[in-house]
Amino acid sequence: METETLIFREEDLNQIESRRKTNLINSLSGFKSANLIGTRNLENQYNLAIFSSVIHIGANPPLMGFIQRPDSVERHTFENILATNEFTINAVSTNFIEKAHQTAARYSRSESEFEMVGLTPTLLDHFSAPFVKEAQLQIGLQLAEIVPITSNNTILVIGKIISIKFPKKALNSDGSISHTFIQSASITGLDTYHQAEKIAQFSYAKPHQKLSKL
Amino acid sequence: METETLIFREEDLNQIESRRKTNLINSLSGFKSANLIGTRNLENQYNLAIFSSVIHIGANPPLMGFIQRPDSVERHTFENILATNEFTINAVSTNFIEKAHQTAARYSRSESEFEMVGLTPTLLDHFSAPFVKEAQLQIGLQLAEIVPITSNNTILVIGKIISIKFPKKALNSDGSISHTFIQSASITGLDTYHQAEKIAQFSYAKPHQKLSKL
Repeated sequence: METETLIFREEDLNQIESRRKTNLINSLSGFKSANLIGTRNLENQYNLAIFSSVIHIGANPPLMGFIQRPDSVERHTFENILATNEFTINAVSTNFIEKAHQTAARYSRSESEFEMVGLTPTLLDHFSAPFVKEAQLQIGLQLAEIVPITSNNTILVIGKIISIKFPKKALNSDGSISHTFIQSASITGLDTYHQAEKIAQFSYAKPHQKLSKL
Repeated sequence: METETLIFREEDLNQIESRRKTNLINSLSGFKSANLIGTRNLENQYNLAIFSSVIHIGANPPLMGFIQRPDSVERHTFENILATNEFTINAVSTNFIEKAHQTAARYSRSESEFEMVGLTPTLLDHFSAPFVKEAQLQIGLQLAEIVPITSNNTILVIGKIISIKFPKKALNSDGSISHTFIQSASITGLDTYHQAEKIAQFSYAKPHQKLSKL
């Protein structure tokens, strides 16, 4: 028996109730990494916000980015980055997903999400943006580029990686970091959290040659 | 006993052997969704390539994007999109990760990855770019915007979603698609594949109010 399928075409998408449409479109990109972005404002207040849009931009130079929405609560994050040129990306482990999710609440400027949700700010070297002590992978970045996306007035914010801190035991033999070791969470849609297990690591793909498992 | 931690600073990153550095930086962004992007060229040949950089751009209008590297094999993908304005994004399920990974091999222009790796092209309506029949989530997109990233000469390619096809049973009650139901794979770094299980879905976060589990 053929599995029953649903097809939504452009005209159908316009008919879906707004909240359901947002949930549908947000779920299309699959598993997304869960990260907390830490910033400081010029009054030395710390801000912390969860993002599911952090992406790898390139290794040489080492760059990461995230999508900033124009109308979101995380706007504080962007304003602080513009003011200080610094931000941190902190991997959310499955043991603090609830605290991480709570940072999405619209706290006032005078309330620090660290205190409100019960996470601990920590510093490194002369870098002034706060890291999340509970995060096993803590990345320090300097603002490198602001890329406007005109289709929907969002912004791709790109940072250059200037520090990386993680448990020694999480280092794989090939130089990468094991996200199963540090139990990183992933997100689908807006609110659903997952844990993952490794199923395979493949060799570099070459034409007309069978892959081997590493 | 304190867990032993590693810290890499900017100057340390420059000392790491090139391949290890690429693996390290590629692993920082955590779990990434595994997708196959399908395109057609003006000679009606099909191209298929795996990407771990697909991201949600926005729901209104419905937009998704991916990062195109200047020097990669997936360049065919970008050339075809420029020529035809159309592409498809197909979620990779765990049961065909090996075939999906093999699309990264540098096949010649005359070889279609579909045939080379053993996946099946399928069409929908008047859309000319091929979908992957084996993929349980198939998304059709029209080129919406090409966003140059000057820091490293990459490109953010953005498409407007014009069709979405998936099994009816994968539709959650809130309108989103269940990636655990369709067994979508996620990738860390360049070559490591994972399966995920749901651990929690939280209510919309509000200040000074405890989250509930949905």
